[in-house]
Amino acid sequence: MKIFIIGGHGTIGRKVAAHFQPHHEVVIGGRTQGDVLLDMTDSASIEQALASVGPLDAILCIAGEAKWDDFDQLSEEDFYLGLRSKLMGQVNVVRLGRKYLNSGGSITLSTGILADDPVLKTTSAAMVNGALHSFVKAVDLEVENGIRVNVVSLGLVEDAYEKYRDYFPGHNPVPMAKAVNAYVRSVEGKGRGHVIRQYE
Amino acid sequence: MKIFIIGGHGTIGRKVAAHFQPHHEVVIGGRTQGDVLLDMTDSASIEQALASVGPLDAILCIAGEAKWDDFDQLSEEDFYLGLRSKLMGQVNVVRLGRKYLNSGGSITLSTGILADDPVLKTTSAAMVNGALHSFVKAVDLEVENGIRVNVVSLGLVEDAYEKYRDYFPGHNPVPMAKAVNAYVRSVEGKGRGHVIRQYE
Repeated sequence: MKIFIIGGHGTIGRKVAAHFQPHHEVVIGGRTQGDVLLDMTDSASIEQALASVGPLDAILCIAGEAKWDDFDQLSEEDFYLGLRSKLMGQVNVVRLGRKYLNSGGSITLSTGILADDPVLKTTSAAMVNGALHSFVKAVDLEVENGIRVNVVSLGLVEDAYEKYRDYFPGHNPVPMAKAVNAYVRSVEGKGRGHVIRQYE
Repeated sequence: MKIFIIGGHGTIGRKVAAHFQPHHEVVIGGRTQGDVLLDMTDSASIEQALASVGPLDAILCIAGEAKWDDFDQLSEEDFYLGLRSKLMGQVNVVRLGRKYLNSGGSITLSTGILADDPVLKTTSAAMVNGALHSFVKAVDLEVENGIRVNVVSLGLVEDAYEKYRDYFPGHNPVPMAKAVNAYVRSVEGKGRGHVIRQYE
């Protein structure tokens, strides 16, 4: 398979990329590093990246940002940072990515546990994640050519645990092998329209 | 109680308003009709409306739009219509509404069954609804002064059934009395951070 991993140099992305690289052709996309550079907030940039690497068998998007802060500190514009990047960036990966996928290909998006079980400072991040869970269910009713769209929703992963554990009291770290497996299930399984939750 | 119902002249809003009017002071907000006019896509307009009617004991928002169309017909801008109106409009009602609520007051937002069980043409609408479900859970961790925030998620209501039934094959209409009760539960119950689902 030819697999495009947007965010393939990130904490999770690099482990996912390392899994697929031995047996597949993996192209890494990223904002500042990778085989192809792209800006998740800019649909023209996303399309340019896809056009330069397609046709593809799988697109994985493990990228996009949302601002964390106390609700009473978040401005309206702060909320739009998450809407433009992690939400519409990923919606645009589906909107535009379909055209560069071979028949039967897959698109895998990324969210996280906050959609279901938020913590302090995550009104924006939780909202974006929840949006994508419902989006994936809705888009599954309409995508054609056997294309599958899923989303992986992880808990706090082991490799980010020390940095973020204080924000997630009582959460159990997700072993990186389990995090990688959630993406493998999406890409190599046949499920579609699924929210693949791996929360510990 | 003094209750501000944004969208109080709509299909659902008028029944909710009629329920509360005999025993409470109800102020109706709307885009084109009502005691106070406001534009859900404009936070300044929302704040102006709130300032003109506050202090309040309850704010109900049964307003906001998202574009329905086939996924391959929805432009990026079409998605932003829903993000600006039904999503950020309601987030702004919470962000700004808190300041005009008495201690122990409540805010009730509105979504719909599409978040959990979408139908064709609803990639944008489902996404907005799902976003609000997660937002309400996250904001509940942070709101102060005993303020409660809930969201009512209804199925296709009886009064809209004939007009929209073809979009919802096999869905059972929600009797208007049950729809109204979902809002009553939010306003007069003590639950908080709840997604109050009434799907039939």
